[in-house]
Amino acid sequence: MTVKTAVHAVSKKIRFELFYSIALCLLCGGASAYAQSATGEPLPSWNEGPAKKAIIAFVKKVTTEGGPDFVPVEDRIATFDNDGTLWCEFPLAEAQFALARLRAMAEKDPSLRERQPYKAALEGDVEYISAAGARAVLELITATHTNESESEYENGARAFLGTAKHPRFGAPYTHLTYRPMIELLDYLRANGFKTFICTGGEIDFVRTFSRQIYGIPTEQVIGSHFEKEWIERDGKRVIWRKPKLLLLNDKDLKPVGISMHIGKRPIFVAGNVRSVGDIGQLRYSQETTGPSFQLLINHDDAEREYAYREKDNASLNAARKNGWTVVSMKDDWKTVFNFQIASKAQ
Amino acid sequence: MTVKTAVHAVSKKIRFELFYSIALCLLCGGASAYAQSATGEPLPSWNEGPAKKAIIAFVKKVTTEGGPDFVPVEDRIATFDNDGTLWCEFPLAEAQFALARLRAMAEKDPSLRERQPYKAALEGDVEYISAAGARAVLELITATHTNESESEYENGARAFLGTAKHPRFGAPYTHLTYRPMIELLDYLRANGFKTFICTGGEIDFVRTFSRQIYGIPTEQVIGSHFEKEWIERDGKRVIWRKPKLLLLNDKDLKPVGISMHIGKRPIFVAGNVRSVGDIGQLRYSQETTGPSFQLLINHDDAEREYAYREKDNASLNAARKNGWTVVSMKDDWKTVFNFQIASKAQ
Repeated sequence: MTVKTAVHAVSKKIRFELFYSIALCLLCGGASAYAQSATGEPLPSWNEGPAKKAIIAFVKKVTTEGGPDFVPVEDRIATFDNDGTLWCEFPLAEAQFALARLRAMAEKDPSLRERQPYKAALEGDVEYISAAGARAVLELITATHTNESESEYENGARAFLGTAKHPRFGAPYTHLTYRPMIELLDYLRANGFKTFICTGGEIDFVRTFSRQIYGIPTEQVIGSHFEKEWIERDGKRVIWRKPKLLLLNDKDLKPVGISMHIGKRPIFVAGNVRSVGDIGQLRYSQETTGPSFQLLINHDDAEREYAYREKDNASLNAARKNGWTVVSMKDDWKTVFNFQIASKAQ
Repeated sequence: MTVKTAVHAVSKKIRFELFYSIALCLLCGGASAYAQSATGEPLPSWNEGPAKKAIIAFVKKVTTEGGPDFVPVEDRIATFDNDGTLWCEFPLAEAQFALARLRAMAEKDPSLRERQPYKAALEGDVEYISAAGARAVLELITATHTNESESEYENGARAFLGTAKHPRFGAPYTHLTYRPMIELLDYLRANGFKTFICTGGEIDFVRTFSRQIYGIPTEQVIGSHFEKEWIERDGKRVIWRKPKLLLLNDKDLKPVGISMHIGKRPIFVAGNVRSVGDIGQLRYSQETTGPSFQLLINHDDAEREYAYREKDNASLNAARKNGWTVVSMKDDWKTVFNFQIASKAQ
């Protein structure tokens, strides 16, 4: 699959996200508290069941020195999708960020309100964007993510995340991490794993919060990225974000992103059902010569989070065929969000 | 500077390397032993002098909790050039590797011996290549580094490094690491630094030995790289190395490589005098808002290693102007190579 094909395929997804976001933006609710993740006993927010059992069995197996499945520490690489795997993806925080930036851009340059595809995006004109297609969406994403210095962009992302609230849960997006998954990250790290994010999202957007909310440092984030250059602006050298997409880190390009960034295959990969975005990295890890583990989260919990599925069930079918561990949010997780723990305690 | 411009600029350097290698290839000497790096007292292979003193003072300063220059562990990022900074760059191991691959390719396909620029490279016809220019060199590098799977390429690199010997010192290239620099890597890591390689060399070539000889895992190597894809070959999914250079990680593109891979500025950078390849990353680190340290190695030791300089002294001039710490191999290092320690002990 070429980058160009991927751009087209994924842009469709982004288009959907952007307008889903616009719709949900109208529904903002009340604020909510936030709790730190639990420590101590492994995976306390997971119900006793096949998923939890399989995870613990795998970790024991690969960390048992002298055992037939022992994996040395340097090969204990784990990659996690972000949206829908580590935090809530409805609405997609990055699409909300793009929309907020677009509004700010239109404040400074009102002519944007009259120019397509900006006009359509600002007005939530899904029909226009759908007709205009992938090129229009890429233009919107590029316009809101580039043509500024690295630090300007990062400050913009931080400012957005510091104020924006989730329309249904009323909490900042950074509080909408899945408590069981934070526990899983902790558990793997306690067992010598190095944890990475491998996301379709823009790498530097995710880097602004990855350490704070997941304990994953910036250098362990793999994501879609734009071209950069190191240039002089206003008498100062800066990293400049150029309006050219270099990698859309999704689907069959996730293994490419992992190979570029890590240089070895992960033995543990977690992704989720929604847009077949993680089948690639799940398969990639399963094709290692040694033991490996694949986790696929199924969003089947409309009450506590959301319930959604793929049209053709491709991810769940792949899981069945390949023996991946499917997590039912409804059945496998005692708690979904960190902030819900805090709410109950009040 | 665009990637294209950089390709041209650096290809010139590669051209020089390749033919320097061809010339030195004729001079193979005898074998030599190899020693592990020292442990215990910091920097024992460094003479007491301004360079050692400055390094230790910097590390103390940024690790003193409550001090005005304290840097938290997550920001203690150090990047090291490889060729000429961590190991000997005369001749360039990767150029020797390329030449060895070219010879093997010509064994399988003798028509290469009659086709330019392969003919010229195989015959050491420097004049032809010089006239043919950057495009010819890029063709040679691309032909010897791509169009195969990730594992085929890595196996090729390992096979080369397992048998090739340095023409003057007679040791494998992987034994020609600088003992004082291995000690410096250890010292920084013992003080909470995360150490990265930031090389103009091809990323996956360097990854085949970075952990073994420097203790730097594959995911902490930043380098020049080609496009990849994840495709099916002979009924198996593989990462395929495509013949398209994506980034030439040298000069002003080293800050770009660092930004893409790490997402933050290093506070400690080490490079060397030769082709102004490290001025970029040294300046980039100095432009952090907090404390930072720049180390520039000057090859002035013809007896124990090599003595060479830049035509216009640009790196040394930049060091003087910006207050970087210059290391004289001759004066600052008690020992140069690991293997020399072992030789003396015999």
